[in-house]
Amino acid sequence: MDFNTYFQEQLDTLHKAGNYRVFAELERHAGGFPKATRHRSDGSVHDVTVWCSNDYLGMGQNPKVIEAMHGAIDQCGAGAGGTRNISGTNHAHVMLERELADLHGKESALIFSSGYVSNWAALGTLGAKIPGLIIYSDALNHASMIEGIRHSRAEKRLFKHNDPRHLAEMMAADDPAAPKLVAFESVYSMDGDMAPIEEILDVAERFGAMTYLDEVHAVGMYGPRGGGVAERDGLMDRVTIIEGTLGKAFGVMGGYITGSTAVCDFIRSFSSGFIFTTAIPPAIAKGATASIRHLKASQTERAGHKANVARLRAALDAKGIPHMQNPSHIVPVMVGDAKKCKWISDILLDNYGVYVQPINYPTVPVGTERLRFTPTPMHSEDDIRHLVESLCDLWSQCALSRAVA
Amino acid sequence: MDFNTYFQEQLDTLHKAGNYRVFAELERHAGGFPKATRHRSDGSVHDVTVWCSNDYLGMGQNPKVIEAMHGAIDQCGAGAGGTRNISGTNHAHVMLERELADLHGKESALIFSSGYVSNWAALGTLGAKIPGLIIYSDALNHASMIEGIRHSRAEKRLFKHNDPRHLAEMMAADDPAAPKLVAFESVYSMDGDMAPIEEILDVAERFGAMTYLDEVHAVGMYGPRGGGVAERDGLMDRVTIIEGTLGKAFGVMGGYITGSTAVCDFIRSFSSGFIFTTAIPPAIAKGATASIRHLKASQTERAGHKANVARLRAALDAKGIPHMQNPSHIVPVMVGDAKKCKWISDILLDNYGVYVQPINYPTVPVGTERLRFTPTPMHSEDDIRHLVESLCDLWSQCALSRAVA
Repeated sequence: MDFNTYFQEQLDTLHKAGNYRVFAELERHAGGFPKATRHRSDGSVHDVTVWCSNDYLGMGQNPKVIEAMHGAIDQCGAGAGGTRNISGTNHAHVMLERELADLHGKESALIFSSGYVSNWAALGTLGAKIPGLIIYSDALNHASMIEGIRHSRAEKRLFKHNDPRHLAEMMAADDPAAPKLVAFESVYSMDGDMAPIEEILDVAERFGAMTYLDEVHAVGMYGPRGGGVAERDGLMDRVTIIEGTLGKAFGVMGGYITGSTAVCDFIRSFSSGFIFTTAIPPAIAKGATASIRHLKASQTERAGHKANVARLRAALDAKGIPHMQNPSHIVPVMVGDAKKCKWISDILLDNYGVYVQPINYPTVPVGTERLRFTPTPMHSEDDIRHLVESLCDLWSQCALSRAVA
Repeated sequence: MDFNTYFQEQLDTLHKAGNYRVFAELERHAGGFPKATRHRSDGSVHDVTVWCSNDYLGMGQNPKVIEAMHGAIDQCGAGAGGTRNISGTNHAHVMLERELADLHGKESALIFSSGYVSNWAALGTLGAKIPGLIIYSDALNHASMIEGIRHSRAEKRLFKHNDPRHLAEMMAADDPAAPKLVAFESVYSMDGDMAPIEEILDVAERFGAMTYLDEVHAVGMYGPRGGGVAERDGLMDRVTIIEGTLGKAFGVMGGYITGSTAVCDFIRSFSSGFIFTTAIPPAIAKGATASIRHLKASQTERAGHKANVARLRAALDAKGIPHMQNPSHIVPVMVGDAKKCKWISDILLDNYGVYVQPINYPTVPVGTERLRFTPTPMHSEDDIRHLVESLCDLWSQCALSRAVA
């Protein structure tokens, strides 16, 4: 087999469908978020405003975070030096895990290299190591949860997105004695909709199931201390495992789970993806700890974030640019065609200095291609005005439909 | 099901077998490696010498690495801001990928969050996306390769460790038209033995197979520019994909693959574990780039490392402490019993200030439990003398067998 030819053919099909991903090469400016320098493929550069960052609150440039990272590098050096078991557990990891357990009101926490790995490893381990476990998974769960469940080879039931009634039907049809786990998210990142957490917990509890809640798009942003939607709704203590990330609102990198000491120790002890990997650098752990601490106390970022989300929605409404209604901070503007979606984002980037990545298949279903805007507290009123005017131009050029004002 | 009771029972079986892992909580001292402060569970601290770090060359405290990280934090902030596709590709990532491609003489490179993820994602994607692929895997391959292959659900053949003849037999027995891939490591981390790379490549080429070589315990340390054992042996151009880590000899964190532009682009485009995860922070990418560049030119670290490995082996020989012979930098001292292994390492840590983690099942097979020493260029002659004298004491106390002098 000529492997390179085969690879090229597969890439060509992506190109033809408009789904080939071209990464925008950026240099973010600490102190100047959401501005960045974009490097073009010809080597030239220009300034852009980033409109699709997951650094939702701009904590990546927070002075306390920056200072904590500098301090850790000077004190402990660059990397952790090993896996958590073999010389890699730094004091900074232990302190971060305590901070995370406290954030979610749990006994214990466990850090992973990323949110992807935390979902994959935690669900993969629970599914593989609890004999007969049935996992009920929301139909729109993130790829990392799907892959973890798949890897575990546990029995899997897909329940309709955000549908506790369907979940209850499926659970009722299964052996009452079988151990069960319900896995879902609080904020779904592509539509920005939220789970009916309380109803899902009601159902899970009725059937004696563990619950696994992914709050990656909510931690730092919802709840009085940034504990997520479950904190906001007073439901954290009813969730068995809360999973989160340090790489979005907390502005750094890494993932984690929190739960009872027994469940965290169980996953710590049996998860290949946790055991056999280098620990995150002390500087990352200390930066994340500083970020979590700051957002436990400060409401400024959350308030500014909320206000800018509302400002953007109002500005889009005023111009009739159709966006998906949802109760979160994610503002999806639907295009519905992969090539058009990529074309618009290319023009926005090249001609208007507006950077928003086209979201195409397989991240979203074919036909629901979109531009996904994530306003931060750092976007100015000028940034919002310029974005909406640019979209207006392109909406006219592309003859895309307007919302009825 | 009472989940916490079940978890606790499973943990109890680990305790009983002596396989329960207790992490040593350390604070490494930049500028003072391999010294560290150990935090005891009662809150007290004491100084230790780390003898099991994977920061093999002490690059975690290299001034160029530290400076590059500081510079990146001041310039670009804490995190990358998103996945590689959605606003997370920083100029620093692109520069690092160029550096890595150059290191291994390949067209292209791709960074992952960790070495674990690079193996899991790359092998998982190749196995799942090349119809009919048969993967031939060395029997002692790392957990991350095993899990990646398992996840891909491709046909798998285990060939006897480091046995090109057995590999050839298995390949000859399969359909000559089936696409094939051979996955192996250059340095096996627990025994420190090396693969017969050339013979394995000969066999793979005879059967038209791709080759996938994990050099995580070799990059930075072998070859005139730190390209690994395949560089040292002049074989890099014959390997299809070379995989490595930024978290061991390079002293930082992250993993990567290098290969043709087509294969890297293929994995970039189809790998869930690459696509749906936050990119590594710019500071990590710039620190790693500085480390790789330094080790491409400097022979000091490699020479000092080699000399200290030889010194430690000679000192162990002089006292009759039996260690496994191998051609690498890893010095395994066999104990052969899980509880004894943990007991010795506890006493070394508590009473002698010597930190070496016991290596027990499942990292190594039952009955081959060991202490795995990794000398760095920073260990002094005093450090070596103190280690060997401490081992001597314990060998007498435990009535462990000595090597014949």
